[in-house]
Amino acid sequence: MNTEQLKALLEDVRQGRLNIDEAVERLRHLPFEQLGFATVDHHRQIRCGFPEVIYCPGKTTEQIIQIIERLAAKGNNILATRAEPDVFEELEKTGKYPKARYEKAARAIIIEQKPIELSAGAIPIVTAGTADIPVASEAKVTAEIMGQRTELICDVGVAGLHRLLDHTERLQKANVIIVVAGMEGALASVVGGLVSCPVIAVPTSVGYGASFEGLSALLTMLNSCAAGVAVVNIDNGFSAGFTAALINQQSS
Amino acid sequence: MNTEQLKALLEDVRQGRLNIDEAVERLRHLPFEQLGFATVDHHRQIRCGFPEVIYCPGKTTEQIIQIIERLAAKGNNILATRAEPDVFEELEKTGKYPKARYEKAARAIIIEQKPIELSAGAIPIVTAGTADIPVASEAKVTAEIMGQRTELICDVGVAGLHRLLDHTERLQKANVIIVVAGMEGALASVVGGLVSCPVIAVPTSVGYGASFEGLSALLTMLNSCAAGVAVVNIDNGFSAGFTAALINQQSS
Amino acid sequence: MNTEQLKALLEDVRQGRLNIDEAVERLRHLPFEQLGFATVDHHRQIRCGFPEVIYCPGKTTEQIIQIIERLAAKGNNILATRAEPDVFEELEKTGKYPKARYEKAARAIIIEQKPIELSAGAIPIVTAGTADIPVASEAKVTAEIMGQRTELICDVGVAGLHRLLDHTERLQKANVIIVVAGMEGALASVVGGLVSCPVIAVPTSVGYGASFEGLSALLTMLNSCAAGVAVVNIDNGFSAGFTAALINQQSS
Amino acid sequence: MNTEQLKALLEDVRQGRLNIDEAVERLRHLPFEQLGFATVDHHRQIRCGFPEVIYCPGKTTEQIIQIIERLAAKGNNILATRAEPDVFEELEKTGKYPKARYEKAARAIIIEQKPIELSAGAIPIVTAGTADIPVASEAKVTAEIMGQRTELICDVGVAGLHRLLDHTERLQKANVIIVVAGMEGALASVVGGLVSCPVIAVPTSVGYGASFEGLSALLTMLNSCAAGVAVVNIDNGFSAGFTAALINQQSS
Amino acid sequence: MNTEQLKALLEDVRQGRLNIDEAVERLRHLPFEQLGFATVDHHRQIRCGFPEVIYCPGKTTEQIIQIIERLAAKGNNILATRAEPDVFEELEKTGKYPKARYEKAARAIIIEQKPIELSAGAIPIVTAGTADIPVASEAKVTAEIMGQRTELICDVGVAGLHRLLDHTERLQKANVIIVVAGMEGALASVVGGLVSCPVIAVPTSVGYGASFEGLSALLTMLNSCAAGVAVVNIDNGFSAGFTAALINQQSS
Amino acid sequence: MNTEQLKALLEDVRQGRLNIDEAVERLRHLPFEQLGFATVDHHRQIRCGFPEVIYCPGKTTEQIIQIIERLAAKGNNILATRAEPDVFEELEKTGKYPKARYEKAARAIIIEQKPIELSAGAIPIVTAGTADIPVASEAKVTAEIMGQRTELICDVGVAGLHRLLDHTERLQKANVIIVVAGMEGALASVVGGLVSCPVIAVPTSVGYGASFEGLSALLTMLNSCAAGVAVVNIDNGFSAGFTAALINQQSS
Amino acid sequence: MNTEQLKALLEDVRQGRLNIDEAVERLRHLPFEQLGFATVDHHRQIRCGFPEVIYCPGKTTEQIIQIIERLAAKGNNILATRAEPDVFEELEKTGKYPKARYEKAARAIIIEQKPIELSAGAIPIVTAGTADIPVASEAKVTAEIMGQRTELICDVGVAGLHRLLDHTERLQKANVIIVVAGMEGALASVVGGLVSCPVIAVPTSVGYGASFEGLSALLTMLNSCAAGVAVVNIDNGFSAGFTAALINQQSS
Amino acid sequence: MNTEQLKALLEDVRQGRLNIDEAVERLRHLPFEQLGFATVDHHRQIRCGFPEVIYCPGKTTEQIIQIIERLAAKGNNILATRAEPDVFEELEKTGKYPKARYEKAARAIIIEQKPIELSAGAIPIVTAGTADIPVASEAKVTAEIMGQRTELICDVGVAGLHRLLDHTERLQKANVIIVVAGMEGALASVVGGLVSCPVIAVPTSVGYGASFEGLSALLTMLNSCAAGVAVVNIDNGFSAGFTAALINQQSS
Repeated sequence: MNTEQLKALLEDVRQGRLNIDEAVERLRHLPFEQLGFATVDHHRQIRCGFPEVIYCPGKTTEQIIQIIERLAAKGNNILATRAEPDVFEELEKTGKYPKARYEKAARAIIIEQKPIELSAGAIPIVTAGTADIPVASEAKVTAEIMGQRTELICDVGVAGLHRLLDHTERLQKANVIIVVAGMEGALASVVGGLVSCPVIAVPTSVGYGASFEGLSALLTMLNSCAAGVAVVNIDNGFSAGFTAALINQQSS
Repeated sequence: MNTEQLKALLEDVRQGRLNIDEAVERLRHLPFEQLGFATVDHHRQIRCGFPEVIYCPGKTTEQIIQIIERLAAKGNNILATRAEPDVFEELEKTGKYPKARYEKAARAIIIEQKPIELSAGAIPIVTAGTADIPVASEAKVTAEIMGQRTELICDVGVAGLHRLLDHTERLQKANVIIVVAGMEGALASVVGGLVSCPVIAVPTSVGYGASFEGLSALLTMLNSCAAGVAVVNIDNGFSAGFTAALINQQSS
Repeated sequence: MNTEQLKALLEDVRQGRLNIDEAVERLRHLPFEQLGFATVDHHRQIRCGFPEVIYCPGKTTEQIIQIIERLAAKGNNILATRAEPDVFEELEKTGKYPKARYEKAARAIIIEQKPIELSAGAIPIVTAGTADIPVASEAKVTAEIMGQRTELICDVGVAGLHRLLDHTERLQKANVIIVVAGMEGALASVVGGLVSCPVIAVPTSVGYGASFEGLSALLTMLNSCAAGVAVVNIDNGFSAGFTAALINQQSS
Repeated sequence: MNTEQLKALLEDVRQGRLNIDEAVERLRHLPFEQLGFATVDHHRQIRCGFPEVIYCPGKTTEQIIQIIERLAAKGNNILATRAEPDVFEELEKTGKYPKARYEKAARAIIIEQKPIELSAGAIPIVTAGTADIPVASEAKVTAEIMGQRTELICDVGVAGLHRLLDHTERLQKANVIIVVAGMEGALASVVGGLVSCPVIAVPTSVGYGASFEGLSALLTMLNSCAAGVAVVNIDNGFSAGFTAALINQQSS
Repeated sequence: MNTEQLKALLEDVRQGRLNIDEAVERLRHLPFEQLGFATVDHHRQIRCGFPEVIYCPGKTTEQIIQIIERLAAKGNNILATRAEPDVFEELEKTGKYPKARYEKAARAIIIEQKPIELSAGAIPIVTAGTADIPVASEAKVTAEIMGQRTELICDVGVAGLHRLLDHTERLQKANVIIVVAGMEGALASVVGGLVSCPVIAVPTSVGYGASFEGLSALLTMLNSCAAGVAVVNIDNGFSAGFTAALINQQSS
Repeated sequence: MNTEQLKALLEDVRQGRLNIDEAVERLRHLPFEQLGFATVDHHRQIRCGFPEVIYCPGKTTEQIIQIIERLAAKGNNILATRAEPDVFEELEKTGKYPKARYEKAARAIIIEQKPIELSAGAIPIVTAGTADIPVASEAKVTAEIMGQRTELICDVGVAGLHRLLDHTERLQKANVIIVVAGMEGALASVVGGLVSCPVIAVPTSVGYGASFEGLSALLTMLNSCAAGVAVVNIDNGFSAGFTAALINQQSS
Repeated sequence: MNTEQLKALLEDVRQGRLNIDEAVERLRHLPFEQLGFATVDHHRQIRCGFPEVIYCPGKTTEQIIQIIERLAAKGNNILATRAEPDVFEELEKTGKYPKARYEKAARAIIIEQKPIELSAGAIPIVTAGTADIPVASEAKVTAEIMGQRTELICDVGVAGLHRLLDHTERLQKANVIIVVAGMEGALASVVGGLVSCPVIAVPTSVGYGASFEGLSALLTMLNSCAAGVAVVNIDNGFSAGFTAALINQQSS
Repeated sequence: MNTEQLKALLEDVRQGRLNIDEAVERLRHLPFEQLGFATVDHHRQIRCGFPEVIYCPGKTTEQIIQIIERLAAKGNNILATRAEPDVFEELEKTGKYPKARYEKAARAIIIEQKPIELSAGAIPIVTAGTADIPVASEAKVTAEIMGQRTELICDVGVAGLHRLLDHTERLQKANVIIVVAGMEGALASVVGGLVSCPVIAVPTSVGYGASFEGLSALLTMLNSCAAGVAVVNIDNGFSAGFTAALINQQSS
């Protein structure tokens, strides 16, 4: 609630258009509802210019569908991440969401209730290997539902530099780049050294042995000798897509 | 080297204005020099729109001053981070850099050879505690030498929420925010939940016991439940300032 | 055995009411029995004012039921934590425990043989997300079987502060609060900063990547900048409920 | 600000006793001041019933004395933890704080401006070894400035059980107990098994080799098989004293 | 090969009873055979006074049975640890080992081809909880096949000290004690403080959360403040039984 | 592209045999193709003198077969590592690769399209235990498809030194040795101390408890007191075979 | 207190030779005294057949000397470990302990008030390198003050096996062996494989990089493939000497 | 001792030229001497074709000089690594080693008593930054005293790829390459992808925050996606130089 809104409310009190109990109520009443198991916050879309997001792990299929129903009733766009295929199947059985679709690679359910106009400039999403594609896909659907165009550049890991260098020009035009890499995660540093825009690096749990479930790539990216690289959690394509979208929309 | 430059060079070959050996030389000659112990890259300022940066730890005072001399000769602005006071004293003794100044809190040497015009919009740099100020200061001088205005908001850790909430409006106007916090590092999540711009989070090694030299704050920030938070290395104010500057200059 | 009991026993010896071998026997005989595989301690309920608790993992269904039988014979209330549903099914098949019930969310078997009168003041159990509910439920059933009223406040993570702040008044009235959070676990610090009672924080293994199975939330909570926060083991709802109950019953 | 205060303020607006701008100001004005480097929160003493605490590491002597001056001006009691002796010497040189004293073992500065009446029931502070005494002392001065009586029981580590068992009766009378132990930290479990009140366990960095600066004792205490044990950060005597004081004052 | 044997061999050479090539062969020929996938060492039983041991994980059922056949042909006693029940079933199907038996709790196959006479003095094997019994059982069968009597004392964890203290006399008579404990592993220190013989401590992976698969108990035991405690690998009942047997047989 | 090739190309430009756009195209055109999900680099075989390698985990069976088809079309030898048996079954169903074979122990698919002549000198591959054989087998097939002869020496762990010492002469003749060991991984140091050629050490995840999935063996090998030991990732038989082949082929 | 003593005491009560309060007192009175900062336990020497040990770190020189005085008054032998040279100098200044000596390599103060007769059989103490000698020396003085002869075998690390094998016969005669090694710590496994007595392994913090202050050697020793190896804390020569002495004295 | 030598010795026995006791003595007598604190192995130079190496940390100056004296008497070349300058000063004071020199950057003492002829082919030693030079220098002096030529290529970290690519041709001609890098250590993967010879990677402890003293670079290098990369311990320039020399001398 900003100052102007507060002044208007107080003016209403002063003018007698609003009695005190109602004013208290309105001052204190924040617009969210209780589902019993989850507090759904409808304000967030307005506040953040963003669709509602449901992180599925740890929730039952019933809980997920119930949350979707509540949110969908407001007409917002919806993104459910890390959704197993059977959640989508159950959702389809309800017959209520003809616009719902399942992005298999990203393991995401998307319901576009409001049309999305994509940005002019695209966010390059660069992956070191084929096994990093699921995480890259999550970043992709996230950025897109936030209205940002993306372009996927796959399998350009640093062991074959020429594969990456071939894309130099595209990368140097971007406002922000997402780099997705497991194993040693060196791709973020190399890309960071080629460009002058911020790089959002996503370590993945791809690898074995001393990759320790993504720890190796995470540390590599945090210690990048290339300035302008910021890091999100292991395998967190959603967070990378979200952050990059926030940056890209400022430049458009 | 972009396509246009390459075509021009080949045209010169075709026209006989350039013989083959010279062409090979120019194609291969990248404009850096060998100091013996360090390869100084003058191109970077042009490529990245950024002053040259020297990371001082592990270099002797002699090495640092030699690198500064080479870089200064090109007329660029210079930032030397993690510089101990005696490095600056030695630099002053040379009598060559009247514009050099030492930022004590940030432990940085700055030589502004070219005038810097600061951006209209400021980057808020928010710290959880007083002990986080050195890292915040490094972020501040970095962003400023890149032409970005900053505003420092200190000691607004989450244990006293009202201190932070008082700054909500300023935070919600920013294009990007830097959050600097040690101990449990929860400030990044709370700020991230209040705003709709990207947050660059810097964990600090402030704390004791199970803070494990900043590991606790690092993990907290990587696991932030607020979307739009990206993280740099522990105590790496430079990287935060650099990344935030890249984002802020896109919006100005 | 306290001093009074010891004096009485010695008096009996002095008076000849007790011969020496019997006295030795009584001095040494501690009232527990050997099941072969487990030493069941009936004294604990008297000593600690608490029902007998069985931690199920690592025990076979047969062992669990055998222990329950022994304990139930004494008439105490019984709580079996981390019990898989099939253990309860087997227990029901015995037909001996009509009062036994299974709390699915908490994965707990409860046998209330003695009536429990709940305390006047409730312990708020606050969770950051829906996925933290199982751990919160374990805390809840534990506190309740110890006679303490509870109130569950779900899904009020720090990324949407207003959701939490709406409950400020309820929280500030409590004698002790349980905070259950995974991911970055920042909720404990924020709650700790709002109240003046002790906070028992439970990190959960909810999260992915660099949450490292709850390590991130654990470290966050241990490093809390808010004073008055004490921490129990990852996912250990039982310990949180137990500790909070001990505190709350002192205030009632 | 509670509901009653809010209603009164709105009533003033309605009655015209307060104009809207002033109301906005009062609604938004939270009573803290800006020192430039630190936001001092005078409300906290009222809100939490507690003296102001200054955590000294990472602050310069000048900063610490400046903060003390501000806080002292309000007449509150003051506790500065982890203060090196020279900070106290500088404070004494100001000649302004005749009531200031330095607790050497605890490395704490205490200024009792308001008289403190100690509680009837004491909090036992139990240490495993002599080397744990500094941390125990920090807990002691913290609890005492919060008005709680304490009793120190030193060097009763589990390798000589009879030393501990000799204190059983005193321990069993307590409302809350602080256990301070390094090395393997087993004392918390043993004490926890003897009593029916909550135990606040403080791991210390005492030990060598695989104690890993307190990690060993920390893990031991978190995994305690005795219910009712909650843990604070390594070497964090302040947090233990604070939490135990909050519990003990409820019982008095 | 000891000095006497070497002299005898050289004497044979000198006397011409052994030609040089044969001598080289005998000097170099160590009595083991190649199965292709495993080098079976028959000498070890003689050298170490011990039955042959097969550690089953990572070996196929076929490989295990083949190794058993080779070893059994020599008439030695055999112990196969961490053997799944189906390995034993397959072994039984061969019909060749009527003396083979499967110890379910220990997951061990035992073939006593030579009679074992048990020692007079027993090794106490003390466990903190019921869930530690499988590891204790492995220690038990190992010590027994090495000819050492054992006595199992279960579920005497430190949270109920009197359960342990009841066994003090038995413990104080032992030459060596095995302590098996998970969770916080404090039992080793407490037992170590009660006795004057060596204690072999086995951390187990019993526990959850911050027990980190036995790491907590391991560190506790390594940092034991009670002198005379030595530690083996997590869950390694075999190594504990073996080491304790070596010690106990010296005293008998 | 080397200097000579570059000169020839520029000569063609100068002579008018190549127009500028074509020259740019040829300069920039690196010979790889886009499959959509993977950038296949045919140059690598020429550049590295090596067959194409496919690391299977994280790729679907369809993706693997598609990559094999593309690569096979060039006539190269192919090695697919960590391939599950069903991938090979699907490959066989295509009926296109009669020369394809599956190495079960190594979990590798091999297609020898070009004949391989094995080196004169063999690379010894030494394993500590039977359970290390799968990793050793991966090293073996890798070295062999690179044209290097190998010899497997199994189950010669350091607990029975004579087993290893029997092979001393063979080891001392080698140009390079691969040592594969889990548990404590001490074999690398002992072998390193016996020979004067480089040792490539592969830690395996064989072991339990505090082997922490191969971390113990990894650290042991990195800290080897024997000079000339270099280490590859845990369980990475491929990398060991590859590196050893590069060394061995130089000596042949 | 054993059963016989208890019976005698009860008899005295029965006979009226002891009144009840005195009996209670005697039953409860354990013979230790309070120094204020440390509970000195005189019983331990009798109970464990061992001199009193003072672990110096974390204690002030004054505290150490005070404890020595108390203990010395009883006539026991005294061992102070990890004592800095200045502690010994201060002790000498008191002029009270002519028999006190300082073992520089072991950093130990020893006061032999009672004559010690050394055992017939010696405990071999084997070190991998010269830098391990301080830890070995601590083990040596500990074992010796407990009456056990020792023999030091230095610098026989596994990189030069013949150095170790030269001592095989001496090692095979021992009842127990102490192995002290840093870096990769492989020596424990190799020695363990040569002998049939228990091996007490002490990892040291000797090494660099990935030795992680002794963690590498610790894990190596815990994962030893040689049975009969038990481990004490990093650099804990005292614990190794103590444990080995307990074992060796049983065999003598 | 090889087969031929053994046969000759046995022949001497058979011929009566050697009596049995002498033969035993000669068979068992390995040519090393006891200094008391260190077993010096003169055989190693012959066995490994290498100068004697002394690792200085943990040894006193006196011990180091004594070892040098013994070794020097045999006429071998000597390398003392990690030697502080004052060790060299003390060595010079003896006046015995006019050929001794101190390599400051490498912290190494070198005594070339036998002339060294350098190999034709040089080993490139590539560093990411100026701060990696000390480690690179240790690798350099090590390889050189083993007779291998080296060439240092400094400060070509991956953030400025063109700096590295300028050296591609030199790198592609090498038989083996040493890569020295701290921070994220990505240089090893990039170099590995450019060449077809083995790469010996040395992680350095250069960096801060989450570089965790070289752990980040270590993990990066172990997880390299480029085949042919093997890794030595953090900061272990000696081991890298030694291993690379063993490889390079095979190719020369």
